Amino acid sequence: MLATVLHGPGDVRYEDVAEPEILHPTDAIIRLSATCICGSDLWPYRGLNEAGPPKAMGHEYCGIVEQVGNAVTTVRPGQFVVGSFCLSDNTCPHCRFGFQSSCENREFMVGAQAPRARVPLADGTLVATAEIPADDLIPSMLAVSDVLGTGWYAAYAARLQTGSTAVVVGDGAVGLMAVLAAKQMGAARIIAMSRHKTRQDLALEYGATHIVSERGAAGIARVKELTGGVGAESVLECVGTKEAMDQAMSCARPGGAIGFVGVPHGVDFDGAHLFFQQKSLFGGPAPVRRWLPDLMDKVLSREINPGKVFDLALPLADVAEGYKAMDERRAIKTLLLV
Amino acid sequence: MLATVLHGPGDVRYEDVAEPEILHPTDAIIRLSATCICGSDLWPYRGLNEAGPPKAMGHEYCGIVEQVGNAVTTVRPGQFVVGSFCLSDNTCPHCRFGFQSSCENREFMVGAQAPRARVPLADGTLVATAEIPADDLIPSMLAVSDVLGTGWYAAYAARLQTGSTAVVVGDGAVGLMAVLAAKQMGAARIIAMSRHKTRQDLALEYGATHIVSERGAAGIARVKELTGGVGAESVLECVGTKEAMDQAMSCARPGGAIGFVGVPHGVDFDGAHLFFQQKSLFGGPAPVRRWLPDLMDKVLSREINPGKVFDLALPLADVAEGYKAMDERRAIKTLLLV
Repeated sequence: MLATVLHGPGDVRYEDVAEPEILHPTDAIIRLSATCICGSDLWPYRGLNEAGPPKAMGHEYCGIVEQVGNAVTTVRPGQFVVGSFCLSDNTCPHCRFGFQSSCENREFMVGAQAPRARVPLADGTLVATAEIPADDLIPSMLAVSDVLGTGWYAAYAARLQTGSTAVVVGDGAVGLMAVLAAKQMGAARIIAMSRHKTRQDLALEYGATHIVSERGAAGIARVKELTGGVGAESVLECVGTKEAMDQAMSCARPGGAIGFVGVPHGVDFDGAHLFFQQKSLFGGPAPVRRWLPDLMDKVLSREINPGKVFDLALPLADVAEGYKAMDERRAIKTLLLV
Repeated sequence: MLATVLHGPGDVRYEDVAEPEILHPTDAIIRLSATCICGSDLWPYRGLNEAGPPKAMGHEYCGIVEQVGNAVTTVRPGQFVVGSFCLSDNTCPHCRFGFQSSCENREFMVGAQAPRARVPLADGTLVATAEIPADDLIPSMLAVSDVLGTGWYAAYAARLQTGSTAVVVGDGAVGLMAVLAAKQMGAARIIAMSRHKTRQDLALEYGATHIVSERGAAGIARVKELTGGVGAESVLECVGTKEAMDQAMSCARPGGAIGFVGVPHGVDFDGAHLFFQQKSLFGGPAPVRRWLPDLMDKVLSREINPGKVFDLALPLADVAEGYKAMDERRAIKTLLLV
């Protein structure tokens, strides 16, 4: 079949690869209903991760089960399923503690920017719907797989409380989902830091009450001004750069919490500085599986519409253009139609 | 009067200094009922902080109010009071949020290893008892001022939940108080890391259920063994060295939390490592003032006996020997009788 392979920085190819097959009895093969490009795919695309061999891209997925291994009992061919980008057995102590993204058998999904994909640990990872969802819900179901779950975790890790003030650093898809999550969790004020009109508009639609377009010291000053000089109880850091983390640290109030979900690149913390800042820091790959059933229900009942975060839809064959559009910030997030 | 001055590494002198005076209308002057030496006093004593001019030592205190400034309304001469090592106005937004140790007007107490001391921000800082406590309660009241409140904060910052497993790294006074706090907050299992028999015994008395005497990789392996290979929900880091923080990080389970209250010296964190560890990190100077009334009540009702942490009592004039005994680990914590 034809699928997406990253050969090196800027070199995304839609090329012939082997059909996915059941390799372990716990695997499932799914036919994707749609797939997409993640902000985190841009790190290797931009050459910011270590170079390696050609890589099958794509970790966000939903679709129809085609085949399951002998050991799979909770999903069956014909069902519509969504899974997390973190594959987990959902039975180990870390999974039972709600941190499936630190599962003892954790794997990261690969090869989902393709018509078909192998999903390891299918029982622990996949959640099936009772019926096949309406076509217009597919983008939202796909968003649950990573960006919505990750934004949700940012709010959780930032200890977001009802009635509180949240700052969201980053206006990419995860940042916008973090706004949605903060709204759903009852934040009274949601300050979205964004310089881009279309993203600002979507942030407002998702529940942001204030937009701060300044960055750096000016951005911090504006957040302080909006919070009576105090800072926010919760800051959701959705980028992963040093600049974004510095912004987050300065926007949180003492005793407040930073949830960080952008994979840190070039970020470090001095212990004594962190001590005297007196701000809680909690991040990691989101345990999307914990919230998957609930978030899928919210999509199916049309309570939330995370799929609006896709502002560009392309045929899967045009995946290279999808990367380019996101890299050049012409698109927030690219949906790939299979 | 004669009081304690640190002139340089290892050079503690009990020498003539000016009597404390009301400098601001918000000050109080107290006569100390007792005072003591803190583990954190050993950092400059050992030359591990930047050198500076001679320094009036001592930040833990309780005693009788002798004099108050014109603006002081909540305490009056003759009352017995305890205050935190962090001086705070208790009215600013950070104080009202429960983080008096990040008060907008925060100062750190100095000069308490003396017969008399000036306490700035007296209204916000000092808590008076209804009556003068019995003499045998003085060491426990003094412990509330810093080490008990700091151990308490370690448990709070480590998100300790009833029924959970806590690991305490460090068997100094704060570590032992952290064991007491974990017990009071309902931890089902408290693993104290300690190599010293007298400290192990006190940890057990304060509620530790397990002692781990190994350090480094062997200590981590032992904690893992005791927690079914998983690690602890809460780790209370009460030292401040890199070794202690590494130990804490490795003993916490994914999704668990580290509360760190030892002032970090040579500790830093790599963002990506912290991300994939997926452990919450929260520390800082303890907002002792938040818990002061409650902890004082617990002492007065003899529900807790934090004063047992003092295993050496010396006349204040022998303060230099008190430092030496703690530096050489002959004493856990030195009480100074005034």
